[in-house]
Amino acid sequence: MRELLRRVGSGEVGVEKALDELKTLPFEDLGFARLDHHRSVRKGFPEVIFGQGKTPQQVVKLAEAVLKRSSQLLVTRVDEAAWEAVREGAPDAVYDAVARTVAVDRRKRVRKKPGVTVACAGTADLPVALEACVTAEAMDSEVQRIFDVGVAGLHRLLGHVEALRSANVVVVVAGMDGVLPSVVGGLVEAPVIAVPTSVGYGASFDGLAALLTMLNSCAPGVGVVNIDNGFGAGYLAATINKSAKPS
Amino acid sequence: MRELLRRVGSGEVGVEKALDELKTLPFEDLGFARLDHHRSVRKGFPEVIFGQGKTPQQVVKLAEAVLKRSSQLLVTRVDEAAWEAVREGAPDAVYDAVARTVAVDRRKRVRKKPGVTVACAGTADLPVALEACVTAEAMDSEVQRIFDVGVAGLHRLLGHVEALRSANVVVVVAGMDGVLPSVVGGLVEAPVIAVPTSVGYGASFDGLAALLTMLNSCAPGVGVVNIDNGFGAGYLAATINKSAKPS
Amino acid sequence: MRELLRRVGSGEVGVEKALDELKTLPFEDLGFARLDHHRSVRKGFPEVIFGQGKTPQQVVKLAEAVLKRSSQLLVTRVDEAAWEAVREGAPDAVYDAVARTVAVDRRKRVRKKPGVTVACAGTADLPVALEACVTAEAMDSEVQRIFDVGVAGLHRLLGHVEALRSANVVVVVAGMDGVLPSVVGGLVEAPVIAVPTSVGYGASFDGLAALLTMLNSCAPGVGVVNIDNGFGAGYLAATINKSAKPS
Amino acid sequence: MRELLRRVGSGEVGVEKALDELKTLPFEDLGFARLDHHRSVRKGFPEVIFGQGKTPQQVVKLAEAVLKRSSQLLVTRVDEAAWEAVREGAPDAVYDAVARTVAVDRRKRVRKKPGVTVACAGTADLPVALEACVTAEAMDSEVQRIFDVGVAGLHRLLGHVEALRSANVVVVVAGMDGVLPSVVGGLVEAPVIAVPTSVGYGASFDGLAALLTMLNSCAPGVGVVNIDNGFGAGYLAATINKSAKPS
Amino acid sequence: MRELLRRVGSGEVGVEKALDELKTLPFEDLGFARLDHHRSVRKGFPEVIFGQGKTPQQVVKLAEAVLKRSSQLLVTRVDEAAWEAVREGAPDAVYDAVARTVAVDRRKRVRKKPGVTVACAGTADLPVALEACVTAEAMDSEVQRIFDVGVAGLHRLLGHVEALRSANVVVVVAGMDGVLPSVVGGLVEAPVIAVPTSVGYGASFDGLAALLTMLNSCAPGVGVVNIDNGFGAGYLAATINKSAKPS
Amino acid sequence: MRELLRRVGSGEVGVEKALDELKTLPFEDLGFARLDHHRSVRKGFPEVIFGQGKTPQQVVKLAEAVLKRSSQLLVTRVDEAAWEAVREGAPDAVYDAVARTVAVDRRKRVRKKPGVTVACAGTADLPVALEACVTAEAMDSEVQRIFDVGVAGLHRLLGHVEALRSANVVVVVAGMDGVLPSVVGGLVEAPVIAVPTSVGYGASFDGLAALLTMLNSCAPGVGVVNIDNGFGAGYLAATINKSAKPS
Amino acid sequence: MRELLRRVGSGEVGVEKALDELKTLPFEDLGFARLDHHRSVRKGFPEVIFGQGKTPQQVVKLAEAVLKRSSQLLVTRVDEAAWEAVREGAPDAVYDAVARTVAVDRRKRVRKKPGVTVACAGTADLPVALEACVTAEAMDSEVQRIFDVGVAGLHRLLGHVEALRSANVVVVVAGMDGVLPSVVGGLVEAPVIAVPTSVGYGASFDGLAALLTMLNSCAPGVGVVNIDNGFGAGYLAATINKSAKPS
Amino acid sequence: MRELLRRVGSGEVGVEKALDELKTLPFEDLGFARLDHHRSVRKGFPEVIFGQGKTPQQVVKLAEAVLKRSSQLLVTRVDEAAWEAVREGAPDAVYDAVARTVAVDRRKRVRKKPGVTVACAGTADLPVALEACVTAEAMDSEVQRIFDVGVAGLHRLLGHVEALRSANVVVVVAGMDGVLPSVVGGLVEAPVIAVPTSVGYGASFDGLAALLTMLNSCAPGVGVVNIDNGFGAGYLAATINKSAKPS
Repeated sequence: MRELLRRVGSGEVGVEKALDELKTLPFEDLGFARLDHHRSVRKGFPEVIFGQGKTPQQVVKLAEAVLKRSSQLLVTRVDEAAWEAVREGAPDAVYDAVARTVAVDRRKRVRKKPGVTVACAGTADLPVALEACVTAEAMDSEVQRIFDVGVAGLHRLLGHVEALRSANVVVVVAGMDGVLPSVVGGLVEAPVIAVPTSVGYGASFDGLAALLTMLNSCAPGVGVVNIDNGFGAGYLAATINKSAKPS
Repeated sequence: MRELLRRVGSGEVGVEKALDELKTLPFEDLGFARLDHHRSVRKGFPEVIFGQGKTPQQVVKLAEAVLKRSSQLLVTRVDEAAWEAVREGAPDAVYDAVARTVAVDRRKRVRKKPGVTVACAGTADLPVALEACVTAEAMDSEVQRIFDVGVAGLHRLLGHVEALRSANVVVVVAGMDGVLPSVVGGLVEAPVIAVPTSVGYGASFDGLAALLTMLNSCAPGVGVVNIDNGFGAGYLAATINKSAKPS
Repeated sequence: MRELLRRVGSGEVGVEKALDELKTLPFEDLGFARLDHHRSVRKGFPEVIFGQGKTPQQVVKLAEAVLKRSSQLLVTRVDEAAWEAVREGAPDAVYDAVARTVAVDRRKRVRKKPGVTVACAGTADLPVALEACVTAEAMDSEVQRIFDVGVAGLHRLLGHVEALRSANVVVVVAGMDGVLPSVVGGLVEAPVIAVPTSVGYGASFDGLAALLTMLNSCAPGVGVVNIDNGFGAGYLAATINKSAKPS
Repeated sequence: MRELLRRVGSGEVGVEKALDELKTLPFEDLGFARLDHHRSVRKGFPEVIFGQGKTPQQVVKLAEAVLKRSSQLLVTRVDEAAWEAVREGAPDAVYDAVARTVAVDRRKRVRKKPGVTVACAGTADLPVALEACVTAEAMDSEVQRIFDVGVAGLHRLLGHVEALRSANVVVVVAGMDGVLPSVVGGLVEAPVIAVPTSVGYGASFDGLAALLTMLNSCAPGVGVVNIDNGFGAGYLAATINKSAKPS
Repeated sequence: MRELLRRVGSGEVGVEKALDELKTLPFEDLGFARLDHHRSVRKGFPEVIFGQGKTPQQVVKLAEAVLKRSSQLLVTRVDEAAWEAVREGAPDAVYDAVARTVAVDRRKRVRKKPGVTVACAGTADLPVALEACVTAEAMDSEVQRIFDVGVAGLHRLLGHVEALRSANVVVVVAGMDGVLPSVVGGLVEAPVIAVPTSVGYGASFDGLAALLTMLNSCAPGVGVVNIDNGFGAGYLAATINKSAKPS
Repeated sequence: MRELLRRVGSGEVGVEKALDELKTLPFEDLGFARLDHHRSVRKGFPEVIFGQGKTPQQVVKLAEAVLKRSSQLLVTRVDEAAWEAVREGAPDAVYDAVARTVAVDRRKRVRKKPGVTVACAGTADLPVALEACVTAEAMDSEVQRIFDVGVAGLHRLLGHVEALRSANVVVVVAGMDGVLPSVVGGLVEAPVIAVPTSVGYGASFDGLAALLTMLNSCAPGVGVVNIDNGFGAGYLAATINKSAKPS
Repeated sequence: MRELLRRVGSGEVGVEKALDELKTLPFEDLGFARLDHHRSVRKGFPEVIFGQGKTPQQVVKLAEAVLKRSSQLLVTRVDEAAWEAVREGAPDAVYDAVARTVAVDRRKRVRKKPGVTVACAGTADLPVALEACVTAEAMDSEVQRIFDVGVAGLHRLLGHVEALRSANVVVVVAGMDGVLPSVVGGLVEAPVIAVPTSVGYGASFDGLAALLTMLNSCAPGVGVVNIDNGFGAGYLAATINKSAKPS
Repeated sequence: MRELLRRVGSGEVGVEKALDELKTLPFEDLGFARLDHHRSVRKGFPEVIFGQGKTPQQVVKLAEAVLKRSSQLLVTRVDEAAWEAVREGAPDAVYDAVARTVAVDRRKRVRKKPGVTVACAGTADLPVALEACVTAEAMDSEVQRIFDVGVAGLHRLLGHVEALRSANVVVVVAGMDGVLPSVVGGLVEAPVIAVPTSVGYGASFDGLAALLTMLNSCAPGVGVVNIDNGFGAGYLAATINKSAKPS
């Protein structure tokens, strides 16, 4: 744009022609829209592919497009078939079968920043919790996993209090009654990101019960993401962690 | 009925006439229905009056009917106007303005049986918690109140663990996220009766959130009653406590 | 802890070191958390495995862990494949195909305590009703089954009134309109645990209708558990029965 | 129309003119729409005024319009103010303060046909039950009221079995758990019209719980109307009773 | 019972013994419960088997039990496998593949009573509409089917006005917006039984939209049954038709 | 912007300064945002004030701001107090007490374009229907009102078929069962805008029933706006009418 | 009808016979119903077949019936099997595998009218967006597709502002948060038809979240259709476009 | 505790006595609970009083208790009456009538840390937005207010892009369609805290629509709090801002 103005100033370009050009200039050049490319560069991966409901072919095509202009790739909600398809073109891709993610990182020596803790209660919540972990790690956070809490009573959780308190941000994943984030929120000072899961039956209504519990949490400092949205939680956690002071 | 059969046996009453009489005999004499009077005698108050939506006149009329054949009376959800009206005819009635109950007990020296503990988290839950207390006490349970838990973090609740564990049955009243019964259920061995309250705002949906939390409780041994149903919880607790072994 | 204090008193341990040790001491040693082990011992089975959504391998692994430190095991919501896998390592395991439970009991001569009655209306409610039965029996209650009520009219239920009244606690399982607990609650003095099932269609909304019916029951003395939660009902019933006076 | 055609045949009216007339003829003359006036005549009151949300002036204006062409009037959901306004112009109007209805009947010696029974459980359901009674009576059904059932246990209801069975149609009004229609439906052969009321609190969700219970009734032969719709139930009952064989 | 009383009168049976016997006598002998057998005889089929969720074996077993004491059988929601199993033992059984019903009628020369009309709008509603037809016919009503209305605009429905008006009772089956019963209710004088179906998508929420439309119908004289409950509608219609005056 | 470029071209303004100015230039100058002023001019009123929940002072302040730069004003959901306040400063303002709107139009001789028809069924829907009328008229559409349909049967509506068919767009307002738009949609060729109202009770759930009916309408060509959103419907109708060919 | 009247006038037909004929004349001759054929002719396809839930045989039969009296056919929600079946009898049928539509157009040289723009955000919304496109095209609108907006930030959408603004009507398809129609509604002057899709997970509740967003849109001029109802949106758009002034 | 151990070490206190004291010592001394005081000190106010549903007396009493041990106080959802009562005892209290907050800060020279931006769309959202501002400020964040966005189109929001991007965390408050957080989330890199408000009508369902929109936001990096929960959002924002690197 500066170049354009310069040429207007020098008479190389007429006023009407400049006006036309300004109108058709891609919006990313107009300030507010430039951001999009900024973000990609800054955050380390330009776009995350949501694999659910996409054919392996669609996933591969999108993955290739991303890898053409980026050294990183993250695909979430990806099944085995899509994974097989992706790794043909990207042999360095890493698949996490529980988290259902495919990740590629072609950068050299990236130091992950500590500060994100992901906690969950039961085995059934693992896919969501791991999706959060993988996402935060792809965004260069080091993630501490606390996956054995909630099942056998308070003492297990309380045994991890120090680990929870040392984090810059804590992601808490829970289904059924969704109680864990309230309890953790009462124990830690850092922001808590609560992720309800669809784990449960009957009046859990596919995660609605856990979602409502978390939204109504008596402990302040809790933000909630969509049911089963491990990606969103990991993304938000990494975003918070990125700008946190080194502890 | 025995008398009727006796008169049939003695020829005083003919078969057809006896048959007729059996048909029109009140059902309480036919075994299954007798229960109702049984219960009244056993439980100490024959019928509880639900005051909500009733005029003072209606409440007074029902109260008088109860007191005519019983030495006990319990009215729930009663406002000041109805209370004023009731005490004119029953000067020994006791009004609890927070619990919104009126109680009369004309029996002599009743020993309340210990074993019921009622816990709640916040000031706003007090009306429901106290309704549970008054109800259980009217049914001859001694009630231990733990009303200062839940507000300022886990440590307050944990300071009452012994008191909670010594109960035969624990009533836990909570609004908003309704988390307290799950936590208590993880700490005590006794049955827990969870009472969601309509305390909260937004996505608490007038107690729905707390209700769902409690129904989905990960801690086993938790039974749930209707939102704000302090009476039902107190009644159920007293019923369990009544048949409990002395601890 | 006493030992620690003794050593502080004797000078064996310095103040700062004692402080550190107090901080890192496992919480189960601090009173409230020790409970967990208490409970396992007392209740006869340390942990129940919720089989739904777990692979046969996961179930087997958890079952082995439980049986290593316990003489009892209960797995609920278990399918045939998991059952086959479990019995390889535990040939004395008992599978109930309708209740979908696997149970192991290696204790000698356990006397079950009478007092729990489980009632249900229709064939379709049987899996939930039987899950309640198996759970209560694993917790050493003797269970009376009344499974033929509700279908053909009131008279069938009324024919069981005596059996219902002799129980310390009655579990009532019902789908569709969920009416049965209200009717039973009007007939018996004992606490009633109502279990809505997802049996029904249309406006039953997978058990929501039955759940709401039960929560709004006009008969007092009714506590409700989650939809299809036979385990929770059996657990709560056994807990109440355990502390009941012998009738 | 026959007349028109006759005049076309006789040449009194030309084809184009007849065509025009046919187009502008009120639809009630074209068969399907004539019904409306038929109905008014047959059913004894041409239109029922729903008073809720209308000003006294609006109610009076509508009432006068109805009484100008009819000897009967029924206004439902009418408050005292509207009632005062109506009776100025219609001194023979009858107000039922509980049912919230105003009725006028200027016909001579109407014989009501027996066959409608209206049952309800509690005092709070009376307004809806009475609205059903008044409506059915205005439509020339004789109504048997059974208003003391459901409160104190099954035996009260069972004491009225004969009365329930003698009806051509039974209206059952119930709030809270809405259980009564299911029980009555199991006892009688006649069609049952179930009316949920908004009576209750908490998880009754303003009558939703009772509505769902009734829609899922295990007893066949039950039709449901809207929450609190006493008018609709009375109307439907009278319609069924009108065409019933004399019993 | 008369016999028992006679023997008491004659001294064959003592008073206490008679009392005992009365207590244990099946409730069907005590008047209210006798009804159940009354109904079976009167209505022509003692019990309807709900086939959904039952194995072919269960269906066959129940069917055999019914046919042992009855000359009629009706099974609803039955799939082909169950049908194959039933007809082995009952070669005279009739299967309606769309209605998903199996019916047996071994009575001689039954005259069906006219008066029931079943209307529906679209092809997709046919299973529910036919279930209503088969049920009403099994209960000895003659059913008039109007299945081509609603699809192509009002004129189709209006072409059937006479047929609709001649019925004693009209069953109207509709999915999606559930508008048809309101329109029919405005055209006929007879009671209308509205059946919402789960046909639709999106905001039809599996029949909820149609259900709510019908419950809120502006046309009086409409009773609603559960979503997809063709059986209930047919049963209620036949019940109303049975007691209707011959037209 | 052209001016700026011209000055850059002439050297009056330097490149860096122009760049700065471009950054801070209000976005309405950058093409996409200029639209906003375009719209105001074109549509005849720059901004509509939603009066609900605003104090009279707030409404007056906003109204004055609008009238300062525009010759038209529309305030919706305005109560009498706000109206009194507004007319002090704008004596030419027109208040519609039923529609709850205040309108000012200081333009000279505006010809309204015919083509919008607003239909509603009952008196209670009038506020919403009139809000639609006032809004469309403020946007220079001539509105035909059909307010007497739906109450007394189909024939009334059918009597207006020609009027409905002559419109470019039809707004149909209905509460309770919300059936009217489906019926109108089957009769007319023009687009239908359906407006559910919160009129009703019980299972109308404050307009939800009508909303769902309309969204599921079997008649194509129906678009739905929010419950009670007469403004939105009038706005959309006027927008469609504005670009319609003269009929 | 004119012919009939003429013959009555000429004496060829008697009055009674004419009356009979008028009664049995299809309602389409009576004015209001004639419309139906009018519409078919005008709109270019007499009836659209909703393929979902229909067997290939049913679809073929309906398709043949339509093609017998029309030169156009549109089948929506059709799977590959039905498509194979249809093209046997109609080799000129065109199948769109993503839109799941089959279309036949045997008219010669139809000029599509420009003015409809269909926008959607993500790949997963394509089937619904394309169904809208195919429908509008079958109704002779030329459709501009904008399918790459919404994914990577505002700038993509803003790059299409001119294209959006040039339309007579814009269809906006979106799942998940359903935000796109609000943003587009703020940018364009033309009416916006918003189509929520069931794309999403968790608290999207199968499109409910997007539906509510759209109904509550702050931008005026937005009408909403049912979730996933691409057909309805395309139909409504074509209807609006048809009567729009040429731009 | 250190003191206690010291005295044990010095022999001043015996082992058993120390054990007793440790048992009765408030749990805040046992490590995990100490946190509570830690937090108070760190965060600048030990406890926030939720004023809603509390009497002025209750609020005053709680406020006094807080001010006795703290130099800061925050009361939310407080009405004028409570405010009057509080300032009698605390003349330095500051009341914000729109935010409905009372705040006291007796610390000297506190420097607020920049980094929190609070944005909202409409006047009606101001109370919630201001509650967030006051809360974050009480926790020593400097808050930038952007309150004029969203109403009149995108350009207003886009005019604030720089301000939004410079924040460490952005709170976005919106009612009705709740679209603003999605749009902001697409523009900024910082974490976004979305606050749905109950502003709206009809299908906004008291904030449910906005809540669902935000939970389903397509823009990653968005965490959601309860409807109208300005306090929670401000608290979470201040927590994130506190640990953020100085920008």
